Amino acid sequence: MKRLALTGGERADWLRLSRTRGIGPITFFHLLEQYGSATAVLDDLPALVRKAGGKNETKAPSKSDIDREIEAAGAIGATYLAACEPSYSACLAAIDAPPPVIAVRGDKRLLNKPSVALVGARDASAVGRRMARDLARELGQSGLVIVSGMARGVDGEAHAASLDTGTIAALAGGIDQIYPPEHGRLYAQLAERGCLVSESPVGYIAGARDFPRRNRVISGLALATVIVEAAERSGSLITARFALEQGREVMAVPGSPLDPRAKGANRLIKQGAALIESADDVLYAMEGIAPPTFDEPFADRYGAPGADVPPALLRAVREALSPTPTRVEEIVRTVDAPHRLVLAALAELELAGEAVTHVGGTASRAV
Amino acid sequence: MKRLALTGGERADWLRLSRTRGIGPITFFHLLEQYGSATAVLDDLPALVRKAGGKNETKAPSKSDIDREIEAAGAIGATYLAACEPSYSACLAAIDAPPPVIAVRGDKRLLNKPSVALVGARDASAVGRRMARDLARELGQSGLVIVSGMARGVDGEAHAASLDTGTIAALAGGIDQIYPPEHGRLYAQLAERGCLVSESPVGYIAGARDFPRRNRVISGLALATVIVEAAERSGSLITARFALEQGREVMAVPGSPLDPRAKGANRLIKQGAALIESADDVLYAMEGIAPPTFDEPFADRYGAPGADVPPALLRAVREALSPTPTRVEEIVRTVDAPHRLVLAALAELELAGEAVTHVGGTASRAV
Repeated sequence: MKRLALTGGERADWLRLSRTRGIGPITFFHLLEQYGSATAVLDDLPALVRKAGGKNETKAPSKSDIDREIEAAGAIGATYLAACEPSYSACLAAIDAPPPVIAVRGDKRLLNKPSVALVGARDASAVGRRMARDLARELGQSGLVIVSGMARGVDGEAHAASLDTGTIAALAGGIDQIYPPEHGRLYAQLAERGCLVSESPVGYIAGARDFPRRNRVISGLALATVIVEAAERSGSLITARFALEQGREVMAVPGSPLDPRAKGANRLIKQGAALIESADDVLYAMEGIAPPTFDEPFADRYGAPGADVPPALLRAVREALSPTPTRVEEIVRTVDAPHRLVLAALAELELAGEAVTHVGGTASRAV
Repeated sequence: MKRLALTGGERADWLRLSRTRGIGPITFFHLLEQYGSATAVLDDLPALVRKAGGKNETKAPSKSDIDREIEAAGAIGATYLAACEPSYSACLAAIDAPPPVIAVRGDKRLLNKPSVALVGARDASAVGRRMARDLARELGQSGLVIVSGMARGVDGEAHAASLDTGTIAALAGGIDQIYPPEHGRLYAQLAERGCLVSESPVGYIAGARDFPRRNRVISGLALATVIVEAAERSGSLITARFALEQGREVMAVPGSPLDPRAKGANRLIKQGAALIESADDVLYAMEGIAPPTFDEPFADRYGAPGADVPPALLRAVREALSPTPTRVEEIVRTVDAPHRLVLAALAELELAGEAVTHVGGTASRAV
């Protein structure tokens, strides 16, 4: 995949292919590598599915459905960016299985500035809120864009304190969805002075399982993630885990062990996260971090064009899958075959309705 | 120096030599190695000083003064232990320049059980106090003796919570001195059920500069030191620094960066101290710590018996000294000579009144 601006029609085809049921993110990029464009994949999709075995109920949304979505987004000033486009966040494009297309509202130039994610508890303490504000303001003044999730508590404070210097909110619902409802004013400010992004369809109302998926976008957009207050088993810890999986720096603000809201952050520090007391600590820990480059070998990551998967490998990959999502790297180790061929096998299995590939670089057996 | 129980007279001579003005701790142990006993050093002291140049106003206290001190200690049930005696804490004996003799009140068997120091702010928060109590109680129940400094705040809580399982207080003043005054009851409890130690003379009232000296005894008595709350530039951080210099583990309980009482502990964690949330964390971090052995090569540490110091080395060591105490290791590097010869040179210079050797393994130019 080369870095490449698309025409409106090409971009619409990216969106259409990405909204196709039965095409997971690995298969998406694998097919893209194979065919060279989303348009070409869509043209051949019926034949592809037939060839793969036909159990997959793959069906692309109609062109007019996609046009309606693009129009609805446009009505509120939102546009789309495909993962190959120069304006798409290079940081986000570098993660495994990035959102193929994101809707963007506001100042999209923020997407390619050095950034840090600041996330934490929705029920943050007064001290946690103040910490979020102070960090966001000072890091913003140091030239970093603040990424967060527009949630109550730490997220909201982080955005509000960095509206003047640059802030991005990644939403779990559609780009037009204001959640939580009391953040209507913040949403408007972000649309006007900051930036909002979403990989969900316009009008989509997020459910509980959409937030972890969104959290990987928060960490993916940023060079580093700072956890301000996070209880055990909290969403912030999920964001931290994604950041680590994405090879990004994780930092945490400590708290008293007797405060449940500090448990998650303290745990992270124990596990090696940098202990943060001030914006200077963040800047120090970020010294020498090279921004991910966009021009990584996508073919290596998503399978070579036209890879011919030996039937034995296809069987081995099928057997390696379980109903629980497994990391692709683990499957590669299990079947002991080249990464690109395993990805090609996963794509074939997904097209055949036997596998599901997930955001974040995992795959499971279709059930 | 061999591990060896002393007769009352020999112990009194250890005390007398250790209370001799102009005999710093390095010179004390150096001479002991050279002469084989404190008694022999005392016998030859006038000749030694004459030979060394005579500028040193070295003068041992009279035998009767020492007998009076021992009697005064005995009146409150305190006894003395020399660093070579089996009952003296093996942990403490292993530090550089340990107190040659300590006064002990209470259960001296506690001195040779596995122990952990728990220190922190005198003006600790309610949360810090509770943390100290919880840690002391649980670590005590796990079989560890709790060492602290009998101060207000964290120290007092740590002792009180471990009276049933074993606790040692290291005092800055004499073994008979109750400080702070409001800890009269705690002092009595420690004397009855725990253990009190002091390297100061009976009746001695501690001044500000005595507390750092005492803090090295706290860390020296313990296998590891846990800091509960510590502001920047606090005594607890001095204890932590001593622990590190003594090669002991340092651990710290984190707190909010907005709480000044957490600054010191957070700083320690940044520098590599284990982050402690619970007694289990302490136990985990202590796994595999081998207790210091008593039978370290004292001759290596304090100079070989009868080492003949070349005049050129004596000059080089003299020139390496400054009015600010310098670590012996640094002097060794500067003059590029064997450690034992440098120690011998320092002892000769101290006897000549040109150097002062300090507790904690430093030396300075006499001024």
